[in-house]
Amino acid sequence: MEKLHIVKIGGKVIDQPAVLEQFLSDFAGISDKKILVHGGGKVATDIANKLGIPQKMLNGRRITDAETLKVVTMVYAGLVNKQIVALLQKQGCNAVGLSGADCNSIRAVKRTHPEIDYGFAGDILAGGINASLIARLVDEDIVPVFCPLTHDGKGQLLNTNADTIASSIAVALSEKFETILHFCFEKKGVLRDAENEETLIGELSEAAYHTLKASGIISDGMIPKLDNAFQAMKQGVHRITIGRADNLAAIIEEKENAGTRLVI
Amino acid sequence: MEKLHIVKIGGKVIDQPAVLEQFLSDFAGISDKKILVHGGGKVATDIANKLGIPQKMLNGRRITDAETLKVVTMVYAGLVNKQIVALLQKQGCNAVGLSGADCNSIRAVKRTHPEIDYGFAGDILAGGINASLIARLVDEDIVPVFCPLTHDGKGQLLNTNADTIASSIAVALSEKFETILHFCFEKKGVLRDAENEETLIGELSEAAYHTLKASGIISDGMIPKLDNAFQAMKQGVHRITIGRADNLAAIIEEKENAGTRLVI
Repeated sequence: MEKLHIVKIGGKVIDQPAVLEQFLSDFAGISDKKILVHGGGKVATDIANKLGIPQKMLNGRRITDAETLKVVTMVYAGLVNKQIVALLQKQGCNAVGLSGADCNSIRAVKRTHPEIDYGFAGDILAGGINASLIARLVDEDIVPVFCPLTHDGKGQLLNTNADTIASSIAVALSEKFETILHFCFEKKGVLRDAENEETLIGELSEAAYHTLKASGIISDGMIPKLDNAFQAMKQGVHRITIGRADNLAAIIEEKENAGTRLVI
Repeated sequence: MEKLHIVKIGGKVIDQPAVLEQFLSDFAGISDKKILVHGGGKVATDIANKLGIPQKMLNGRRITDAETLKVVTMVYAGLVNKQIVALLQKQGCNAVGLSGADCNSIRAVKRTHPEIDYGFAGDILAGGINASLIARLVDEDIVPVFCPLTHDGKGQLLNTNADTIASSIAVALSEKFETILHFCFEKKGVLRDAENEETLIGELSEAAYHTLKASGIISDGMIPKLDNAFQAMKQGVHRITIGRADNLAAIIEEKENAGTRLVI
């Protein structure tokens, strides 16, 4: 099967123009088929603050009220997505920026919770990834660039976690491609000591992950990311790495210790 | 040749949710191939005001400084474009929202002027419409929804007039399709008295246009719109109408006095 790289880039990197441009140059240099998924939470928070729209976070998740949905729609699908697409075009990479509403590519349902109102947060439906459409674009050498927005098919846009979008796309496309998923962020990978890049875990098994989680060595935002990732591996994703955005070229070349590689 | 409708919808209509949704329902109901081009200037001005970014207009054109470019990128490509796409998907219309950077669909060059700095305003290059890409999407029954942004191929997004985008697309696609261009806005069409909808000019020849312009009956924003439109007709566009957004269904059915039809 042909390789398909799905690369997720986080919001903190997006906020640094020089780092972003280098990252996009490395991404454009991937000779296999590829898809980019981006966040943008930091930029959205900045714009919401400027507009005087208070942001509520709960366990690291944004509570997306109606005004906040407008902000994330502007920032994710507009400012961040189009700047990335324009920079990729500069690199000769034929990108197309998409939300889940575009081409009905990702269908979701508004999250319901007995106690917490997450607002316009969307959970991707089973079968909600339009794999045939995405494969058609990829086969035409168009490079989809997804922002973290989905829709419910009834006219409502929804805010959806970018990590989840990346892993859901990787799973859904794994019937047709050998999917390789890369989570790129500001750290070298999964670290034994979050403050020390020398403590990189080069290869992480699910068993070791559970031990490290139980002992508190892996904590906070890394937990949903890794739960999500191990789940994706079990559902057919061929290879998953977590690493620093400015290390993407080495990660793609599968260099040792270029990031944390997950194994099951 | 197969018919292809290119419909342009202005910013004032976009700002009225009920009118917009009815308009999109009528647009989705067009059984022929179709493309939508939207503005969004009114929403952009509102957001810029909220962000405290002063807006400078010159002869009805926005001066797009760096901060204003960010605002229009957020509003046009994000807020307005994705809301339209989600509402079209609700109607079963398989829309994809595009800026000119997406799929390199519209290439432009930053406007230069000996005296006025228009900022990041883009003029579409000769051959800048990627007609083969747009035709490929249309042939696949995907409905492109263009926001008024282009790019220079060097990583720079540019603000480009939506009327110009609509007519440039209609011209570029007229080799492959019988292109029909509709400018939809808040008035019934070209009026002899701008305040009286009873004075609609049902059919306007270029000769009559020049007479009416010389006598001051046609003035202001209507002049670049009509100059642009007559130019497009001479370059191969089959039919052009100017009419009210809530009259789109009648305009498509070519009902008499549903708007102003241009003739050369």
